[in-house]
Amino acid sequence: MLFQVEMTVKLPPEMPTEQAAEIKARERAYAQELQHAGKWRHLWRVAGSYANVSIFDVEDNAELQELVSSLPLFPYMEIRVKPLCRHPSSVRDDDS
Amino acid sequence: MLFQVEMTVKLPPEMPTEQAAEIKARERAYAQELQHAGKWRHLWRVAGSYANVSIFDVEDNAELQELVSSLPLFPYMEIRVKPLCRHPSSVRDDDS
Amino acid sequence: MLFQVEMTVKLPPEMPTEQAAEIKARERAYAQELQHAGKWRHLWRVAGSYANVSIFDVEDNAELQELVSSLPLFPYMEIRVKPLCRHPSSVRDDDS
Amino acid sequence: MLFQVEMTVKLPPEMPTEQAAEIKARERAYAQELQHAGKWRHLWRVAGSYANVSIFDVEDNAELQELVSSLPLFPYMEIRVKPLCRHPSSVRDDDS
Amino acid sequence: MLFQVEMTVKLPPEMPTEQAAEIKARERAYAQELQHAGKWRHLWRVAGSYANVSIFDVEDNAELQELVSSLPLFPYMEIRVKPLCRHPSSVRDDDS
Amino acid sequence: MLFQVEMTVKLPPEMPTEQAAEIKARERAYAQELQHAGKWRHLWRVAGSYANVSIFDVEDNAELQELVSSLPLFPYMEIRVKPLCRHPSSVRDDDS
Amino acid sequence: MLFQVEMTVKLPPEMPTEQAAEIKARERAYAQELQHAGKWRHLWRVAGSYANVSIFDVEDNAELQELVSSLPLFPYMEIRVKPLCRHPSSVRDDDS
Amino acid sequence: MLFQVEMTVKLPPEMPTEQAAEIKARERAYAQELQHAGKWRHLWRVAGSYANVSIFDVEDNAELQELVSSLPLFPYMEIRVKPLCRHPSSVRDDDS
Amino acid sequence: MLFQVEMTVKLPPEMPTEQAAEIKARERAYAQELQHAGKWRHLWRVAGSYANVSIFDVEDNAELQELVSSLPLFPYMEIRVKPLCRHPSSVRDDDS
Amino acid sequence: MLFQVEMTVKLPPEMPTEQAAEIKARERAYAQELQHAGKWRHLWRVAGSYANVSIFDVEDNAELQELVSSLPLFPYMEIRVKPLCRHPSSVRDDDS
Repeated sequence: MLFQVEMTVKLPPEMPTEQAAEIKARERAYAQELQHAGKWRHLWRVAGSYANVSIFDVEDNAELQELVSSLPLFPYMEIRVKPLCRHPSSVRDDDS
Repeated sequence: MLFQVEMTVKLPPEMPTEQAAEIKARERAYAQELQHAGKWRHLWRVAGSYANVSIFDVEDNAELQELVSSLPLFPYMEIRVKPLCRHPSSVRDDDS
Repeated sequence: MLFQVEMTVKLPPEMPTEQAAEIKARERAYAQELQHAGKWRHLWRVAGSYANVSIFDVEDNAELQELVSSLPLFPYMEIRVKPLCRHPSSVRDDDS
Repeated sequence: MLFQVEMTVKLPPEMPTEQAAEIKARERAYAQELQHAGKWRHLWRVAGSYANVSIFDVEDNAELQELVSSLPLFPYMEIRVKPLCRHPSSVRDDDS
Repeated sequence: MLFQVEMTVKLPPEMPTEQAAEIKARERAYAQELQHAGKWRHLWRVAGSYANVSIFDVEDNAELQELVSSLPLFPYMEIRVKPLCRHPSSVRDDDS
Repeated sequence: MLFQVEMTVKLPPEMPTEQAAEIKARERAYAQELQHAGKWRHLWRVAGSYANVSIFDVEDNAELQELVSSLPLFPYMEIRVKPLCRHPSSVRDDDS
Repeated sequence: MLFQVEMTVKLPPEMPTEQAAEIKARERAYAQELQHAGKWRHLWRVAGSYANVSIFDVEDNAELQELVSSLPLFPYMEIRVKPLCRHPSSVRDDDS
Repeated sequence: MLFQVEMTVKLPPEMPTEQAAEIKARERAYAQELQHAGKWRHLWRVAGSYANVSIFDVEDNAELQELVSSLPLFPYMEIRVKPLCRHPSSVRDDDS
Repeated sequence: MLFQVEMTVKLPPEMPTEQAAEIKARERAYAQELQHAGKWRHLWRVAGSYANVSIFDVEDNAELQELVSSLPLFPYMEIRVKPLCRHPSSVRDDDS
Repeated sequence: MLFQVEMTVKLPPEMPTEQAAEIKARERAYAQELQHAGKWRHLWRVAGSYANVSIFDVEDNAELQELVSSLPLFPYMEIRVKPLCRHPSSVRDDDS
């Protein structure tokens, strides 16, 4: 089941550089782990911003909550979620 | 080059049913033609709405304008566009 | 799987009274059918408005889209959807 | 008398971890006490967020204010309240 | 139990003058009836607008819905509702 | 001359408890003084929030500014002001 | 007593040209009459728009309501009102 | 003197095609005349929309108002204006 | 050339009282200097707020930027600017 | 390929003056380097603000992201991006 998740990162300017780097490294590792597991299906940067557009593929709402709230950057992000489903005009078999 | 395009359809309630059906049929044909051509890479319905989330893959901004403004439903939609690019944490070779 | 669905009805003032009455009657029948089927779990009026707050219990996003877009009042409503899941502090077994 | 209460938690990032944990523990205990007392009828997590959707069942507006303003997380939450009442199409006897 | 109700009237410009006058006359009669009954406790015009600020005194949310949705201008108004209760610093015995 | 004044308190979470208590005590004393003087005609809590709805009765705009800007909580509040006047359908002699 | 009044004109596109011209002529005559009477102290066009910024000088809120609601374009305007008073740093004797 | 002007066209769907075509033809002729006169310095389409971003070079605010309010599409556009001036880091002699 | 400038002051609560007093004293001196020079034509307090409505009379956009960005409170204000010009219905010779 | 980029600078008031000066100096050098390289085609100050309107000319979305996210002020700015393309009524050969 697919969800569009839009994340905008808002790190406080006063956070020490090393702390920010450490969080970002964990975020990257976690994001890649979820991608390899097939849970985080797409991940794009929004050009000109510190934001991304993502497509998650999860079992249900509970798994979405579990995965998103475990993001190391979760406390520092504005997140918008939209449930997706197959569009009647889609020609791709795997977009649902 | 990728763009996220979010479209919300707002057909005027007073539009005759046949006219709406005819526009939607043309929209569907056009959407499928662009998908087969590789220009409209993803097309999802936003659940609980008359809206979609789409990913376009175009040569440049001019082609995006040409394709989107030719949509039969273009005069009846609210459209939001975001330029996308490869995310440094993405593991997919084809998401850029 | 639960979703909060908030619906605000905006019937065009120029719609003939009988047409509005007929749509509302079909809406009522459909709402009660979905409630009896266990799909529309809660339905409350927002006091002082022509709006409701609802909880849907569906198989997945696709079923949510199917049920909501089939509402007779669908073309005349503003609809906001939020995916829900069990809250870690909830004490009710059936709220998930 | 029912109210929908939507709460979004915004803990300041600089709050020490133990202080946050202590507030959350008190919040959890209080939430469960109110649920057992029948005052906090439903409590759902909004998937992909640090927010909840709740249904309160209170005597009157004054009791709503007393219960909500006593939440340990009250100073750190954005809260939206909507008064609810029985919907004419509802089939549930206890949803009012 | 008190509620603040803010109403902004948006009559469609194409409504015939007599029809508008007839609705306004019924609105006025109904507003005065509710005021005499003690249900519509205060009614002020917002200066420079076609809007009012009102205080309703009702038994519960259901009565608020019944009274407000029966306003002859109800289909033509934007309405915002806030539940009120006694303020701990109030010195008036009857403001609760 | 009447004004609706809506105040939402936003105390910084890091303010020491005693400092907050001292400001609130002065706010309370000042609010009660203005009420006894007939300047602050109504004061209600908005249920489920740290906000109030108030009606001020002042000589003119200048007095409104003097009274409101002297509130001890003034630097910590979001304030919205609406000028009010007698509504043509009001039946109360003193609501103007 | 001064008020800033910002008015944005939204004439329905389908209004016949002569009807619009007639309303505008009455609006102009009325605006000039109020200016000569000293009630409408300033009237500026916002460049690049069909909007104005105005300063009214009235006895009280009731007179503001009377004057503004009598504007021939009143049913076709979005209007925002702000009560003004003397600024402590102003050097003009007549700006209060 | 430069102004950024952003225009979004909102033609009513019920406008006859010939009428729309005639207005657009006049708009185009007028836009090109102003460009040749050096008054409309830049004109770009916003990709994926029926909107443009423009830079006007005018004598003063009054000329901006005269030029913009004379646009044939003026009654059908949402327009946002920002006054521009030379940026201290600009290296172009003619961007002021 | 005239501009409406609306300024809302947002001093950080943690700023020491003396520092705030010193900035405000400089702001006051500067505001009065610009008024005497004829550049800051009107300055009103918005009643019930820490905000003002001002009319500036400048040579061009560049002078507006120079004057406004030199305000001692500039880093602590939200500022909205609207270019003004003579209104065709104005009867004042000096309002342009 | 052109993009409109609007940047609003929000430096935290508590940043030491020298640190701010150092960041601004690097921003200025970088902005001028990109202008000389033909990547930052236009750069205007928005009068009365700490904001700019810019036109970037880049190879693709990825280059836009690279250039914008490398701005020394990037962590302190609100940035809005719009993809641009040639307008059918433009008469300039180089505005695409």
